[in-house]
Amino acid sequence: MNARTSPRPQLQVRRVNLDTGRENVVIISRRSKALRPEVFRGFSRVEVQRDARVLLATLLITDDDELIGPEELGLAEPAFRRFAAPAGSLVTVTPAAPPGSFDAVRAKIHGQTFSTPDIDAIIDDLTHFRYSDMEIAAFLISSASFMTSGELLALTQAMSQAGAHLTWDSTIVVDKHCIGGIPGNRTSMVVVPIVAAHGLTIPKTSSRAITSPAGTADTMEVLTRVDLSVEEMKEVVAACRGCLVWGGHVNLSPADDILISVERPLALDTREQMVASIMSKKLAAGSTHLLIDLPVGPNAKLTNALEAMRLRKLFEFVGSHFWISVEVVTTDGRQPIGNGIGPVLEAQDVMAVLANDPDAPRDLREKSLRLAAHLLEYDPELRGGTGYARAQQLLESGAALRQMHKIIESQGPSVCRTDLGTLTADVPAPRDGVVSEIDCLRLNRLARTAGAPIDKGAGIRVHKKIGDRVEQGEPLFRIYAFDESEFDLATAIAKADAGYVIDGERPAPRATP
Amino acid sequence: MNARTSPRPQLQVRRVNLDTGRENVVIISRRSKALRPEVFRGFSRVEVQRDARVLLATLLITDDDELIGPEELGLAEPAFRRFAAPAGSLVTVTPAAPPGSFDAVRAKIHGQTFSTPDIDAIIDDLTHFRYSDMEIAAFLISSASFMTSGELLALTQAMSQAGAHLTWDSTIVVDKHCIGGIPGNRTSMVVVPIVAAHGLTIPKTSSRAITSPAGTADTMEVLTRVDLSVEEMKEVVAACRGCLVWGGHVNLSPADDILISVERPLALDTREQMVASIMSKKLAAGSTHLLIDLPVGPNAKLTNALEAMRLRKLFEFVGSHFWISVEVVTTDGRQPIGNGIGPVLEAQDVMAVLANDPDAPRDLREKSLRLAAHLLEYDPELRGGTGYARAQQLLESGAALRQMHKIIESQGPSVCRTDLGTLTADVPAPRDGVVSEIDCLRLNRLARTAGAPIDKGAGIRVHKKIGDRVEQGEPLFRIYAFDESEFDLATAIAKADAGYVIDGERPAPRATP
Repeated sequence: MNARTSPRPQLQVRRVNLDTGRENVVIISRRSKALRPEVFRGFSRVEVQRDARVLLATLLITDDDELIGPEELGLAEPAFRRFAAPAGSLVTVTPAAPPGSFDAVRAKIHGQTFSTPDIDAIIDDLTHFRYSDMEIAAFLISSASFMTSGELLALTQAMSQAGAHLTWDSTIVVDKHCIGGIPGNRTSMVVVPIVAAHGLTIPKTSSRAITSPAGTADTMEVLTRVDLSVEEMKEVVAACRGCLVWGGHVNLSPADDILISVERPLALDTREQMVASIMSKKLAAGSTHLLIDLPVGPNAKLTNALEAMRLRKLFEFVGSHFWISVEVVTTDGRQPIGNGIGPVLEAQDVMAVLANDPDAPRDLREKSLRLAAHLLEYDPELRGGTGYARAQQLLESGAALRQMHKIIESQGPSVCRTDLGTLTADVPAPRDGVVSEIDCLRLNRLARTAGAPIDKGAGIRVHKKIGDRVEQGEPLFRIYAFDESEFDLATAIAKADAGYVIDGERPAPRATP
Repeated sequence: MNARTSPRPQLQVRRVNLDTGRENVVIISRRSKALRPEVFRGFSRVEVQRDARVLLATLLITDDDELIGPEELGLAEPAFRRFAAPAGSLVTVTPAAPPGSFDAVRAKIHGQTFSTPDIDAIIDDLTHFRYSDMEIAAFLISSASFMTSGELLALTQAMSQAGAHLTWDSTIVVDKHCIGGIPGNRTSMVVVPIVAAHGLTIPKTSSRAITSPAGTADTMEVLTRVDLSVEEMKEVVAACRGCLVWGGHVNLSPADDILISVERPLALDTREQMVASIMSKKLAAGSTHLLIDLPVGPNAKLTNALEAMRLRKLFEFVGSHFWISVEVVTTDGRQPIGNGIGPVLEAQDVMAVLANDPDAPRDLREKSLRLAAHLLEYDPELRGGTGYARAQQLLESGAALRQMHKIIESQGPSVCRTDLGTLTADVPAPRDGVVSEIDCLRLNRLARTAGAPIDKGAGIRVHKKIGDRVEQGEPLFRIYAFDESEFDLATAIAKADAGYVIDGERPAPRATP
């Protein structure tokens, strides 16, 4: 009997409408005519093959012929999309070994370090979706407790080279990045128009919210189109010097998005990985001058100045190596910046600041001016120390607002619903006193539960900040939602604990009926 | 609006015939009337609730109303079984935070050590299926590079206490355990009848194969029933002093089985975790005297004497702490023990040794006698140094064979097909020379691919061992299978590389037609 002469039995591809997130998942019948699933179970994953196309996937088993019959192979949505074989086409399935680069991950777990070729191979396997979620978790954790500076540089380099690369005509391409975690905090949408109005090139790509109630891309989308292609983005920048687009269509450092999809559910947070992630995207984006915003506060990602210092050094180290001029500022991360949390509410704050509205949130205005001042001083023409005054001038003269309107017009009209949530509830102060602390994580979770960013108009408007005096029953913030059941859940969460500390105590407020 | 007055919308439980392994998985419609999945995505997992019952699960999303409608919640098989709510019953779904004990895992990843309460909480969450596969991977990897002796003891203790506990009338309860990895190697099935025939109590529980072609329970099942309850096991031991049953119904250290389900696909192999795993099962099984077999060889789990020494010290350390008398022997792990690989083939080897058949594999006989000798000397009545002679006497007199028949009779008749695979192929030596090395992993994979242990009669019979002279074309081993497509795949794998090194070279043999 010769294996060459008897072709492997083939299965028919069937599309299964099941969103399995990032991971490739296939479904096979327990009575499959190809290979029995129990035999497969001995191996960790399977390889699906059609002509030269190969897909590595995790296997689920069913006894239900209506779901998947013995002659079929079910491909869940992400696997079906990536494999790109039409339903009904014939494929073979064989047991698969873990991806080749995983040996290095196992060695790292047991105390070895990664070589540069190890890291290149891992990033290659990652971006080709050959790692399971568990394998990605193993890679992240293996390097979470210890990463050499060589590993950090190799990882940044490999990640930056895995996707698209942007190039710009200007010799100075400025960018800013905040490590996140602070509700509101939409400084980019104020900073970009100021800096672009001055004449520096600032092609800003931003992310959408994954676990938070809004990313800059979600908020900008309230005002304009953000899902631009690279070509469209270049046209906007040529016309306006700046843009504010979603990075998703631009495909910068796709490995980063894959790593984040596993970091988030595990709430892993490793300094070196954060630096590699951010710097790889900036390298791929063609930035030459980069300002990093590190908020420090009791519920922020950084809780003290020492941690911030250590992270600053890492950013500076990687920046020098790759010839990016990096400046790092630490900012107040004790509470939300601006009053709105959620896309529409945040966009209102931003436009109020740009319009010099007297009621615009002062903290958002001040922080944006301060960050813009740093960026403006990258202009060799500007005298040292005059950045803040220049930023203020561009804002107060209306130049920044005009630049924002120009960017919005260039990017195209928004297609989103932009009205505020119709279900509202005020969350009252449970006692008299002075607000001494605000739990940012709790407010983020509340706004998310209320429907943000899926519902652009859902979220929270904060009325009281740290240092404000409140009277019992006075509203601390207002919840906005559209969906009744999400509204109920958010209200119940706020009722249990609104996340406000008053005079050093954290009582549970009663929700108003 | 008050959250108390508007009850959370409920969904109807629908059973989904999908085997998701160990993990709890639920499926929700993208248009679910409870909460929108995109809102859930911000959180890592969901909590399903009905009265006081709570299930923590991973969420998949579908757009297919026929699979799961907007009013339904799909529970994949393991989740459905564990939640034990009938189809159609009403449940609520809410976003869930990671299990409480996971904070300690995150701290461990960043260099902290686990306290005993940390480990107790982790094992409690694990055994209640509150950890996702990714979270289990995180726990395993967090402690893979470094575990203190305190952590090792706490982990062993917590794992041993999580499941059932066996107690025995005898003051001496002996047990043996091999760390695995060597094909064939069914010494327990020879050792138990010898030791029981002598009169010592040896209640042996064994595992089924997970990724290997046979576990002791799979092989014993060829001869007798192995899925005994604790009560039935006790009756057998009362009648025969020994038994050879599957541990699955006995529920010793269930956390171990959960950890292994993630260790295997990642091929993680941590010394401390292996020791905690084995010792927790032996503690729960009520063993007082334990012999550990550590095979050492180039493709074995341990590749040199230094590694074996380190592992021995760990076993001895944990043994002393819990008052189990532990003896550790290192054995030859360079090649298969016995000739058969696969349940029926291995059972034939075992019975040939017990029957003193002159053709019985000498290596299996010798190794079993050596291990039995160690165990017999736990009998205070036996003079030091006479264990081997006593074992030999029990084997050669037929006492061991009679004891085996008694055990088989007590456990009850086998219900398996016990014929050998009808599809066979000899894999020939590609050249003349002397066998200098055999790749155990490759032979295991081959036998597994041929259908073992699902098909009891599938596997490999080895004809040539290390040191044997072979001529070109002479069979190295024979493959047995029932399923044609598995047979083809196994033959193709053997053809690419049979795993034999001849005179220091590893050529690819040609399969005979």
